[in-house]
Amino acid sequence: MLTLALESSAKAASAAVFEDGKMLSFTIQNAGLTHSRTLLPMAEGLIKGLDKSMTDIGLVAVSRGPGSFTGLRIGLAEAKGLCWALDIPAVGVSTLEAMAYGGPILDGQMLCCCMDARRGQVYNALFTVEGGRPVRLTPDRAIDLPELQSELIARQEPWILLGDGAELCYNTLDWEQVTLFTAPEPLRLQNARGVGLAAMGKPPVSAHELLPAYLRLSQAERQRLAQLDEKA
Amino acid sequence: MLTLALESSAKAASAAVFEDGKMLSFTIQNAGLTHSRTLLPMAEGLIKGLDKSMTDIGLVAVSRGPGSFTGLRIGLAEAKGLCWALDIPAVGVSTLEAMAYGGPILDGQMLCCCMDARRGQVYNALFTVEGGRPVRLTPDRAIDLPELQSELIARQEPWILLGDGAELCYNTLDWEQVTLFTAPEPLRLQNARGVGLAAMGKPPVSAHELLPAYLRLSQAERQRLAQLDEKA
Repeated sequence: MLTLALESSAKAASAAVFEDGKMLSFTIQNAGLTHSRTLLPMAEGLIKGLDKSMTDIGLVAVSRGPGSFTGLRIGLAEAKGLCWALDIPAVGVSTLEAMAYGGPILDGQMLCCCMDARRGQVYNALFTVEGGRPVRLTPDRAIDLPELQSELIARQEPWILLGDGAELCYNTLDWEQVTLFTAPEPLRLQNARGVGLAAMGKPPVSAHELLPAYLRLSQAERQRLAQLDEKA
Repeated sequence: MLTLALESSAKAASAAVFEDGKMLSFTIQNAGLTHSRTLLPMAEGLIKGLDKSMTDIGLVAVSRGPGSFTGLRIGLAEAKGLCWALDIPAVGVSTLEAMAYGGPILDGQMLCCCMDARRGQVYNALFTVEGGRPVRLTPDRAIDLPELQSELIARQEPWILLGDGAELCYNTLDWEQVTLFTAPEPLRLQNARGVGLAAMGKPPVSAHELLPAYLRLSQAERQRLAQLDEKA
């Protein structure tokens, strides 16, 4: 039984195929093409390249957020479609937790996972590594950059920055009081390998129950609420 | 103009597409299928997925060894075929140097690149990192494991082990006298991203001039020489 993992929470899109806990194949595209055109063909190419068929897929793992609203909706919609068509379950994982699983994993490492959430914020969660697995130190949250900086400085650890917001954090803030590393690109960008690893051992749900975790309202919803406020 | 990078020196096969120094897409397969069936379809899938055609490829980068004789011959033969058909040049890079380029790159890091060469040996080269680029400390060589151990201990650095021989080195030898890390899998296994990065700025050659670098005689050649010795 194969697990197909999908990641489309930001600019890059990726897919991976696992069997018995081992990654058999992986592909990533970071050229700015829309995920609605690229993600499924990527997955299909991997399955075909392994001499397997779609019916060999027994589980779909997908990042359910936080992240780009459009990107997440494409990934989740494709996961739901596959699960419904193949009558198989899914596991939705936190984009930030998937980053931690896909990053450098030496015991004692401190991982700061971040995505650019615009408006001076990042989507963020902090992890440490114990027994070769990431252990959560905070929930997923949208946090102001200066507040994140204070948290990192308070813990005084060398931190490894992961995620498509890693460079934003590294370049924006003044890091004199804490040691910071940016992970190399194949580990830094959130990807389907991390999604597959994070999904292992998590309870599967039906296609129906697979829901996005946005953390913030979309721009359209914010604007609508603002208009309603004005009218009130 | 695109650069297509190919890597097939060991069990895994991978392909990557670069434009203007940036990696646009990448795919890897590590399921034990023969590279002669998987490598070209992987490359074709990447090019197609980018809405490009094979005629957009202006350069082929390929690992020319050391490594598996069969794997290298497949990679080099496909590179030569593409270059000849498209009338474009190629860059052959050392498999071990490609590992260094594809690995963790922080200044001052010490990189020990190794592949299992059987018979108690590894194919190996040592690198350090200066200005964000690997700098060679040794040529590519086939070296006995105890001799490599003495070299690493003499330098007393924390070493990062890269390559499909990293686990062999880590597990076989007694490392009490030197600190050793095994890089996480996406950086550890030689791959086409490292090949593409290592090829940048190197002078291209024609398909004719692209030659493998085997370091040792093949088993067939060794057996033939042994038979000739017996007869003499």
